[in-house]
Amino acid sequence: MSTQRTKPAVHDRRTVARSRLFEVEEMHLEFSNGVHARYERLLNSGRGAVVIAPMLDAETVLLIREYAAGTDRYELGLPKGRIEADEDILAAADREIMEEIGYGSRRLSHLGSFSLAPGYMSHTSHLVLAQDLYEHRVPGDEPEEIEVLPWRLADLGRLLEREDCSEARSIAALFMVRERLLAKP
Amino acid sequence: MSTQRTKPAVHDRRTVARSRLFEVEEMHLEFSNGVHARYERLLNSGRGAVVIAPMLDAETVLLIREYAAGTDRYELGLPKGRIEADEDILAAADREIMEEIGYGSRRLSHLGSFSLAPGYMSHTSHLVLAQDLYEHRVPGDEPEEIEVLPWRLADLGRLLEREDCSEARSIAALFMVRERLLAKP
Repeated sequence: MSTQRTKPAVHDRRTVARSRLFEVEEMHLEFSNGVHARYERLLNSGRGAVVIAPMLDAETVLLIREYAAGTDRYELGLPKGRIEADEDILAAADREIMEEIGYGSRRLSHLGSFSLAPGYMSHTSHLVLAQDLYEHRVPGDEPEEIEVLPWRLADLGRLLEREDCSEARSIAALFMVRERLLAKP
Repeated sequence: MSTQRTKPAVHDRRTVARSRLFEVEEMHLEFSNGVHARYERLLNSGRGAVVIAPMLDAETVLLIREYAAGTDRYELGLPKGRIEADEDILAAADREIMEEIGYGSRRLSHLGSFSLAPGYMSHTSHLVLAQDLYEHRVPGDEPEEIEVLPWRLADLGRLLEREDCSEARSIAALFMVRERLLAKP
């Protein structure tokens, strides 16, 4: 059933809106059945983002709770941030946890990559599992102190009941990490 | 540890970019510690989106594979779409599966809601579990036929190995549905 389909041809691409952070592109597409359509999508200016699952011990992940301007409320989830120009995925993950939770990691593993809304965003977020943590704080650009909450992976169900835990990337990542670390009897 | 923090005050909001689909707003914020910052965020023009887990039977979910302009490739995930002006969450979910997979549902349940990137997007997606399906197709606005793939919830691990299954919302949703429907022995 999963045949290789022919991707639509891109006849034209142009920027239709731009701000400091965002760039919107319009694409004129022709699907293989001859249908023409115009789509808008958000371009990812940078090199993508990392979402990190920092393990305080074999069963406990460190979550952060910080103000999120998009939803205008405090959100509970995994540490995350953009990959800088000179970094690879694991280096970005290590820097982000030093800035956001005050730990570095001696064992970083890239577990997979997420799209956010592939229909209209090109953004990719890479999930990194961070183990063997050691205390090491590096100043970041956060406007206020970030609250850090240890959470047992076995209590994921209780976390999902909290209204401030809503981010799809963090939720998907926590399930994937639980699956990997908590062996079923 | 999870104290109620004082949200930053919003001193100013203005639209800095706009296209047919997107609106970017700049907010001037003052955090409770006195730090000022300017944030850009993407406004959600509509009423949010639905992501639907349509169950063909107790163990099998119906996935779709369709072209995604944001990532410019075919993506495998759950059916989804915007909530129209006259719809509630469950009605939107029922319409979307009629359009995308050719089934209606006699048992729709709202399982939770996701944010996508709460730091810079206001968007919310509501997860709806659709059970007791019946065949009923309604024409949608898709530019080409959508491929439908039945997938056993027990095979979620194998799904995550596929490169075309990347969307964080779909992955989080499938874990949540599996948790709910597949009782552990």
